[in-house]
Amino acid sequence: VTAGPDLPPTVGIVGGGQLARMLLPAAARLDLPVVLLAAADDAAAPFCRALITGVPDAAGLRALAEACDVLTVEHELVDLDALETLEAEGHVVRPSAATLRVATDKVRQRELLGPAGVPVAPWCVARQVDDVVAFAGEHGWPLVLKRPRGGYDGRGVYVARDADQAREVLAEVDGPVLVEPQLPLQHELAVLAVRRPGGEVALYPPVLTDQQDGMCREVLAPAPLPDRHVEEAQRIARMVVETVGVVGILAIELFLSGDRILLNELAARPHNAGHVTIEGSATSQFENHLRAVADLPLGSTRSLAPAVMVNVVGVEDDPRGHLADALAVDEVHVHLYGKGFRPGRKLGHVTAVGPDLDGALDRARRAAAALDHGDPS
Amino acid sequence: VTAGPDLPPTVGIVGGGQLARMLLPAAARLDLPVVLLAAADDAAAPFCRALITGVPDAAGLRALAEACDVLTVEHELVDLDALETLEAEGHVVRPSAATLRVATDKVRQRELLGPAGVPVAPWCVARQVDDVVAFAGEHGWPLVLKRPRGGYDGRGVYVARDADQAREVLAEVDGPVLVEPQLPLQHELAVLAVRRPGGEVALYPPVLTDQQDGMCREVLAPAPLPDRHVEEAQRIARMVVETVGVVGILAIELFLSGDRILLNELAARPHNAGHVTIEGSATSQFENHLRAVADLPLGSTRSLAPAVMVNVVGVEDDPRGHLADALAVDEVHVHLYGKGFRPGRKLGHVTAVGPDLDGALDRARRAAAALDHGDPS
Repeated sequence: VTAGPDLPPTVGIVGGGQLARMLLPAAARLDLPVVLLAAADDAAAPFCRALITGVPDAAGLRALAEACDVLTVEHELVDLDALETLEAEGHVVRPSAATLRVATDKVRQRELLGPAGVPVAPWCVARQVDDVVAFAGEHGWPLVLKRPRGGYDGRGVYVARDADQAREVLAEVDGPVLVEPQLPLQHELAVLAVRRPGGEVALYPPVLTDQQDGMCREVLAPAPLPDRHVEEAQRIARMVVETVGVVGILAIELFLSGDRILLNELAARPHNAGHVTIEGSATSQFENHLRAVADLPLGSTRSLAPAVMVNVVGVEDDPRGHLADALAVDEVHVHLYGKGFRPGRKLGHVTAVGPDLDGALDRARRAAAALDHGDPS
Repeated sequence: VTAGPDLPPTVGIVGGGQLARMLLPAAARLDLPVVLLAAADDAAAPFCRALITGVPDAAGLRALAEACDVLTVEHELVDLDALETLEAEGHVVRPSAATLRVATDKVRQRELLGPAGVPVAPWCVARQVDDVVAFAGEHGWPLVLKRPRGGYDGRGVYVARDADQAREVLAEVDGPVLVEPQLPLQHELAVLAVRRPGGEVALYPPVLTDQQDGMCREVLAPAPLPDRHVEEAQRIARMVVETVGVVGILAIELFLSGDRILLNELAARPHNAGHVTIEGSATSQFENHLRAVADLPLGSTRSLAPAVMVNVVGVEDDPRGHLADALAVDEVHVHLYGKGFRPGRKLGHVTAVGPDLDGALDRARRAAAALDHGDPS
């Protein structure tokens, strides 16, 4: 709406959490105008040039679309039918509603990507306990049952050790579940890819993600893995990007099980596994997401040095009260999201870069611990 | 005003230009609350949590002081008497009004720092042309005549080749001028220092600053100079910081003339010579200024790699129209300040980091040129 023939587009962002909060400085640096659709007390709301107060329903999305040239998302809890209507009317949505339908549905991901050659674990969709028992007959217990949509940070993922437990999960989910064997996992990996509308793609080096109770806790970048695993992860990521045809950042979460790398799930937005790129890479995931969405040349995804990110998840105290203790740790980058303290809530993260992964991990852990409960010494 | 016993203070920033615009993301990352005193259309105004619309006169400064726990400045065109009154009433001002009086007056700088052992060129204060002629009798023509206060980006600096030219300058300045010999300059340098209230000091490595018509155009960091010059610059910087007793960033601009390093001038705020620290140093000058002002531990000033900054100064076109051309240059960091195009105006800067100064300089120059007039190829 503000864009002249040569001026960059106004970007509308759906959502005002920490991802939007980290997108905003990247947009300001490039002087890309941004409009946010968020609640007034969201983490990013105080820092944006223009705020539309609302939720991502049909009305909110329409208001945002009318205030911007290109619409993107920082979370996926969006009314996709409304988004499709806006696309049909000519509004530019990146990633598209079609991409978001894939990225928000673990069953669709497998239906689409399995036949395209992406390695996936055996799976089925179970509507009743007999389906689960039949799958167990082939693959054994325990099984992992997942809500196909809406889960994140470990929510919506269950382990069933027998038919009774499977029945309980089905009752709780109250709908079809995705069933997979519980794999012996060495590692969880993520590859962040970024794609421009014309097809230009850049991949960040694979990272190792350490999960606890399904929530990302630590990221090591680049992943300290043998070349063959790194190359296989990149091969899979490239296949996924080409098949999905995203615009913007696509986070491709993978399992390393035995000697095989398998698809876990996708997210079509900047991702926790990519926060480490702010200081650890030549171009951050946030800037590259905006470059892609605004159809500008992508920036280098080169890793500058071994880097580590540790999430600050609320346990004891509000980290704002322990900032001095954390900053007393040398060479760490403290990011706080301005969110109120609640046990188990992601409140921030700490990144440390170089000279090696062990040193960086030690510093980042000490600062993250200090943010939670004070002096690390 | 918002700070509890353990919570970080609310920082009030006087000014809304590009320096404030770059301070704000550093504050957001640490979740330091910020209030800005600025005009509504200033570069930083759209990005702050809380804005007081106004100018830095007695009323504006009081309104800001009452809304924050600690007040700092991003420019020095501030009513210092009013600031002193606020200090006397118990408001915390960092740097202090006394420091700002030194940092805004080239004559005071010499009066204070010369006797403290800081090398300065011969100088005098001239009120009439006879004073200049007498100084020329000792040091020869041409001479450099400087407005003691209020000059920046080369404004307020004049060269006089004879008594007639000196008379013209005195008539224009309409007040006393600082007179110095025109030194044979090899280089201009800057050392950024940062000091906490308790006395903790950190120095960034000296940088080379390339000036054109008195305006900073390029910065090479760290300065590619022999060790003895680097050490001498650091020795002088440390002496200056201890004597001035600043809180926050102090930019110490120096001349390298012959084999001597001499004081040029000071600025008690983040400085153009330090923009390169955003991507080139372990902690940016903006974060360290805020850490010092909020009395938090200082961050490492280590240089990550040879780095170059090139200012984007308006010549042909609005850089917003050439963003794609600039981003097509690999591994550059484009910073646009959101200021309207005007020839000669600083509109942004480009930083390039590593692997060596020559490569970084080439990339940063190409991107800066592209921002001004399009495709660099």
